[in-house]
Amino acid sequence: MLEKIKAPSDIKKLNSGEKIQLAEDIRTRLVEVVLKNGGHLASNLGVTELTIGLYSVVDPFEDKVIWDVGHQAYVHKILTGRNQQFDTLRQFGGMSGFPKKNESDADCFETGHSSTSVSAAVGMARARDIQGQTYKVVAVIGDGAFTNGMVYEALNDAGTMKGSVVFILNDNGMSIARNVGGMSKYLGKIRSGKTYVKAKKNIKSGLERIPLIGSPIVRGIQKVKTAFRTLTIPGEWFEELGIKYIGPIDGHSIEAVEKALKQAFYLNCPVVIHAITHKGHGYADAEDNPSRFHGVSPVEASSVKQQGYSAVMAEELCKMAEKDDKITAITAAMPSGTGLEKFGNIFPERFFDVGIAEEHAITMAAGMAAAGLRPYVAIYSTFMQRAYDQLLHDCALQKLPVVITLDRAGISGRDGRTHHGIYDLSFLNSIPDISVCAPCCPEELKQMLRISRENKTGPFVIRYPAKDNSDGIVTITENNIVKYGKGAVVYESEKDKNKKNVLLISLGQITGNCIKAAEALHDMCNVMVFHGRFLKPLDEDGILDCINELKPDVIVTAEDGVKEGGFGVSIAAILQKHKISCGFDIISAPSKPVEHGSIEELYEEAGMDSVGIMKVVLRLL
Amino acid sequence: MLEKIKAPSDIKKLNSGEKIQLAEDIRTRLVEVVLKNGGHLASNLGVTELTIGLYSVVDPFEDKVIWDVGHQAYVHKILTGRNQQFDTLRQFGGMSGFPKKNESDADCFETGHSSTSVSAAVGMARARDIQGQTYKVVAVIGDGAFTNGMVYEALNDAGTMKGSVVFILNDNGMSIARNVGGMSKYLGKIRSGKTYVKAKKNIKSGLERIPLIGSPIVRGIQKVKTAFRTLTIPGEWFEELGIKYIGPIDGHSIEAVEKALKQAFYLNCPVVIHAITHKGHGYADAEDNPSRFHGVSPVEASSVKQQGYSAVMAEELCKMAEKDDKITAITAAMPSGTGLEKFGNIFPERFFDVGIAEEHAITMAAGMAAAGLRPYVAIYSTFMQRAYDQLLHDCALQKLPVVITLDRAGISGRDGRTHHGIYDLSFLNSIPDISVCAPCCPEELKQMLRISRENKTGPFVIRYPAKDNSDGIVTITENNIVKYGKGAVVYESEKDKNKKNVLLISLGQITGNCIKAAEALHDMCNVMVFHGRFLKPLDEDGILDCINELKPDVIVTAEDGVKEGGFGVSIAAILQKHKISCGFDIISAPSKPVEHGSIEELYEEAGMDSVGIMKVVLRLL
Repeated sequence: MLEKIKAPSDIKKLNSGEKIQLAEDIRTRLVEVVLKNGGHLASNLGVTELTIGLYSVVDPFEDKVIWDVGHQAYVHKILTGRNQQFDTLRQFGGMSGFPKKNESDADCFETGHSSTSVSAAVGMARARDIQGQTYKVVAVIGDGAFTNGMVYEALNDAGTMKGSVVFILNDNGMSIARNVGGMSKYLGKIRSGKTYVKAKKNIKSGLERIPLIGSPIVRGIQKVKTAFRTLTIPGEWFEELGIKYIGPIDGHSIEAVEKALKQAFYLNCPVVIHAITHKGHGYADAEDNPSRFHGVSPVEASSVKQQGYSAVMAEELCKMAEKDDKITAITAAMPSGTGLEKFGNIFPERFFDVGIAEEHAITMAAGMAAAGLRPYVAIYSTFMQRAYDQLLHDCALQKLPVVITLDRAGISGRDGRTHHGIYDLSFLNSIPDISVCAPCCPEELKQMLRISRENKTGPFVIRYPAKDNSDGIVTITENNIVKYGKGAVVYESEKDKNKKNVLLISLGQITGNCIKAAEALHDMCNVMVFHGRFLKPLDEDGILDCINELKPDVIVTAEDGVKEGGFGVSIAAILQKHKISCGFDIISAPSKPVEHGSIEELYEEAGMDSVGIMKVVLRLL
Repeated sequence: MLEKIKAPSDIKKLNSGEKIQLAEDIRTRLVEVVLKNGGHLASNLGVTELTIGLYSVVDPFEDKVIWDVGHQAYVHKILTGRNQQFDTLRQFGGMSGFPKKNESDADCFETGHSSTSVSAAVGMARARDIQGQTYKVVAVIGDGAFTNGMVYEALNDAGTMKGSVVFILNDNGMSIARNVGGMSKYLGKIRSGKTYVKAKKNIKSGLERIPLIGSPIVRGIQKVKTAFRTLTIPGEWFEELGIKYIGPIDGHSIEAVEKALKQAFYLNCPVVIHAITHKGHGYADAEDNPSRFHGVSPVEASSVKQQGYSAVMAEELCKMAEKDDKITAITAAMPSGTGLEKFGNIFPERFFDVGIAEEHAITMAAGMAAAGLRPYVAIYSTFMQRAYDQLLHDCALQKLPVVITLDRAGISGRDGRTHHGIYDLSFLNSIPDISVCAPCCPEELKQMLRISRENKTGPFVIRYPAKDNSDGIVTITENNIVKYGKGAVVYESEKDKNKKNVLLISLGQITGNCIKAAEALHDMCNVMVFHGRFLKPLDEDGILDCINELKPDVIVTAEDGVKEGGFGVSIAAILQKHKISCGFDIISAPSKPVEHGSIEELYEEAGMDSVGIMKVVLRLL
C-alpha cells in the first residue's frame, strides 16, 4: 500500500482497510531500515497509526505539524515523499533522523531536544491568527516530554489563547525509560481508568465525610474537597490550565485519531488529545523491551558500546559510593544511556531519576550539596544546555560541590546537529568558581572522578565523549597521575636542533589524534603534545613551561568543541599577554552546525582527525 | 516589639497580640529603609505575617527555609538577627537584598532567579532523609514563580517522595506584574471561591448531561467527566501530581499560618500550603500600586530611570511596528522593566506576556518566526541564562530571525551577584549563526534595532545596560552610521610621532569610559578608540585596519562582561593568529561573582571605570 502514497494527501483516498494495510507496510519498512542503520525504532512503531490518522485530517504541507523530540518523525518522513531515501537514514550525507527544513517543506519546525513542540505550536498558531491565515497547527508530544517544565510553561500560556491549536499527547507510559513523577502517575490513573469507577462511588458518600483542616470559613469548601480528593477526572489537570481535553483515545485506532482530531478542530481552541499507544507496537522484540530499542545502534557497532566512558563512569562511581555514603546519583531520564542504571540497582535509595528535567536535576543537586551530600549528576552534554542558569546561579555562585559528568560531549555522531555536545566548553568557561576537565581516555576519567570527590571549591564538571573510538586512543600510564588544574606532557619526540619545534596543546580525547599526528610528523619537526586536561582552571604555568622548554615555532591547540569561548582562545589570550609570537592556530569543531554521520566521518570533515591536525601544522611550519 | 526579638526562637514566646504588634513594627521598619535605600517593598510587606507565623513553628537556624526569588526575604533577615544592619540594605559593602550564606546561617540557600526553591527544598529533604536527620524543610514561593517550568519539574518529582517537605504558595494574585496564564486563572478561581458553590450545584444535575464526544467505550467516563468539567476543587491540580494541598488560608492571619504548618508537618509528606496574601499589605501606597513598588529605586535616582535604554528600545520598536505588522513583542513577566508595556498598550494583539517562562518565550518566538512573523523578545540579560538551549537549539540551528533585546546587561547594580548580566557575551559567543551587538549609547541602540529588522541570517541579540549612567557617555553622531558586523573609530587623538601608540577596542557602553580614559591619556600617548559594536560577527578587518594604521605598542580591550569566552579573548585569538606582538590586556567584569552596590562603585572596584582603564594602559606602556 505504501507505494500508492506519493503525497500525504493520498492517504485521505484510502478506505479504512487500506489504511491498516498501509500501517503494516510502514512498520515493515521501519524495522528493515532501523535495524540496518540504527535509530529510534520503538517510538516510531508506536506512532504509525497515529501519523496515518493525523494525515487523514491535516496536510503537513499546508498545515503545521511539529514532532516533539524529532525522533518519532520517521513515519512522517516516509509519508511525506521520503520513502525512497529512507534507507539513507542517519548516514553521512543521507537523511537525518530528525525533522529538517532542508529535507522537506513538511518539516516546518526542527526538533531534537525534548518538549519544545508545544511552545513552537503556540507561536505558530498566534502567527497564523495575527496574519489572518487559516492553517491548522498540531504538536505531537510524548508523555516522557511531559516531565519537562517547558511543556508546562507553554500550556500555561496556551491557556490564555483563543485560536485553535492541538497537542496530541502520545502516551505510551514510558517515553525513553520508564516515566517518573507525579504526572506519570496521573496519566497512569487515566489510562487504567480505575479512578472513574472510584469517583462514581465516592460522589455521594464523600459529602458526609469530616473535614480535615481549615478555618470555619473554609469548612464548607473543605467538605466538597474531601469528597473528591481521590477523584481523577480525565483531563481535569489540563482543563484547570484552560486547555480542552479529549480522551483518552486508542492511538492505534486510525479511526479514533481522525475522530478526535475533527472534534478538536471543531472546538477551535487549545485542545489536548490524549492518545494511548504502545511503544514498539506491532514488533514483538521492540514491544517487549522498548527501552533497549529506543535508540538502536547499527548492528556492527553495538557490541563495543558497553566498553566506553559511560560504563567506566558508572562503575567507578559505584565503587566510590560504596565507601562514601554521602554520594548520590541523579539522572534526567537517562539511566541507561549514562550508565547510572547500575548505580540505581546497587543504591536505590541514593539514586534519583527526575525525568527530562535538567533544570530541576541541577538545582535539586544543589539543594542536596547545600545539605551535606555529594551529588553526581550524569547528563548528556547537549542536554546540559538546558540547565546553564541553574549550574551558574544555583551551584557556582554558592560554590556548591555538585559534580556533573557530561556524557556524549564533542561531536556525537548520527543524531546530528541537535545532539552534538560541542558547546559545553564554551558555556562552562564563563561560569565562575567551576572546575571543568576532560579525560583523554577512560583511565583518566577514573582519576578525574577521584579528584572530583576531593574537590570542594564549587561545581566540578567532567566531560567525555560517547565512545572511545576516535582514530587514536592514548591510555595514560600509572605514573602519569592526574592532578587538579594540571596538564601533562603526553608525547615528546626526540629533539633535533636542526628541526623546527611544534607544540600541540590538546583537551580531552582529541589528544589521541594529536599524538597520532605527532608520530607522523616527528621526522619533519620536534613535536611535543601537552594535554591540558583542565579547561578551568587552565594550566597556564604548565603551558608556559612547555613553551620555555621547547621554544616552539608553531603552537596548535585542539579541542572537541566550538572555537568561540573555548580552550584554544583561552590559550591565545595567555600567549598574547605574554608576547609569545609564533605560528598559531586553533583546531576545533566547526562554528557552523555539524550534521550527522559517524564520528570518524565528521572528524575528518571538520579536520579534527590526525590528518587534519597534521595539515594545520604543516601549513604553519 | 521588634527589639524583643534577638533570635527567631523569641517569636514563639510572644502571645498573639504581641505577634500582631511585631508585624506592625516590622512593617514600619521595612517602609523606612526601603524608601531610603530602594529595594522590594510590596512583596515584603505582603509576607510579614506569613514569616512571623512560619518562625513560630520552624527555626530557620535549625530547619531549612528557602525564600524563592530572594527579594521577599527582608522580614526573614530582620527576624534572624539582622535588624541592626538592615539600613545598609543594598548598599556597597552592606547587606544584600537577597539571602546570602555569608550573612547568616539562617540563609541556607541563596536565591535570586525565580522558581528554584522547590527544587532546592526537594534536594534538601532528600539529603535529610538519606542522612537520617530530622529537620524541617520549607520553601516559600510566590504565585508568579508558578508560571515557570522549574516549579512543575520539581513538583512532578516531589510527587514521588515520601518524606516531609512543605511548599508555601504565597499567592497575592500578582507577583511582579499581573500574573498571566492558565495557572493564574486556576488559582484565581480558588481565591474567589466561586467554583465551590457552582460545584455543589452541579454534582447531581451533571450526571444527567449528554456526553460531548468519544467512542462508545469511553462514553461512561465522559459522562462523569462532563459532569465536573466546570468544577474546581481547591488543590486538585497539585493532588494529581501527588502533592497534598492545604488551603486556601489567610496569609495575613499568623494563627492560620501556624495551624496550616502544624498540619503539614503532621502529614509528613510533600505538602503545598496555599496562603492568600496582598502585595503591599498594610501600606496604602504600595497596596494601591504594587507593580510600581515591586522594585523601588532610591528616591534620588528614580527620576532618571525613564530616559534609559529600555524606554528608547520600546519607543523605537513601537515606531517599527507601526510600519511593519509582522513585528510582535514578547516579555517574560517584565512588561514594565523592559519598557514593552508601551508596545502592549498600542498593539495589544501583537504583545505577549508569557509569565516568568524564558524558555517558552524564546521557543514560542521561534515558532512565530518560523511562521513568518518578526518577533522581538525583551528580556533581562541575567534571565536569558534560563533560555540558552532554546536560543541555540530552536532559533540558531534553524536560523530563525528572532530578535532578542537583552536589558540590564553588564554590571547591573544593587541586586548583586544573581542579577548582573555579565555572562551573556560569553554564552552567546558559542552560538552558531547568531548576531550579537552592544550599543555605546541610546542612539546606537536605535540604529541596531533598525539593522535587526533588516537582518534575516538567524537570531539577533542587542545587549544594553540598565541605565546610561556609566561615567562617560558617548553619543555617536549622525555620520557615524552603524553597519552590520562593523565597528567604528570613535576617538582618535592627534598623532605625535614621538609618542607611543595605544589602541583601545571596546564593546558597548564601556566605550564611554574608554573615550574618557583616552582623553586623559592623550598627552602621554597617541590613542585610538575602536568601538567593535558587534561581538558576532566580529569586525576582524576593522580591527586589523586600525592596527595597520596605528602600529600600536599597546592594545587593550574593554567589555562589560566576564573575560572567559568574551570579546577580549576573541580579539586575542585574532592577534595571536596574525602574530601581532605588543602589550596586551583585557578589561572585563571580574571572573569571580560581583556583589551589590551602585554601578559606579562596582565599576571602580573592578577597574572598569576610566581610571581603571588608564591604569592598565600606563602599566603596559
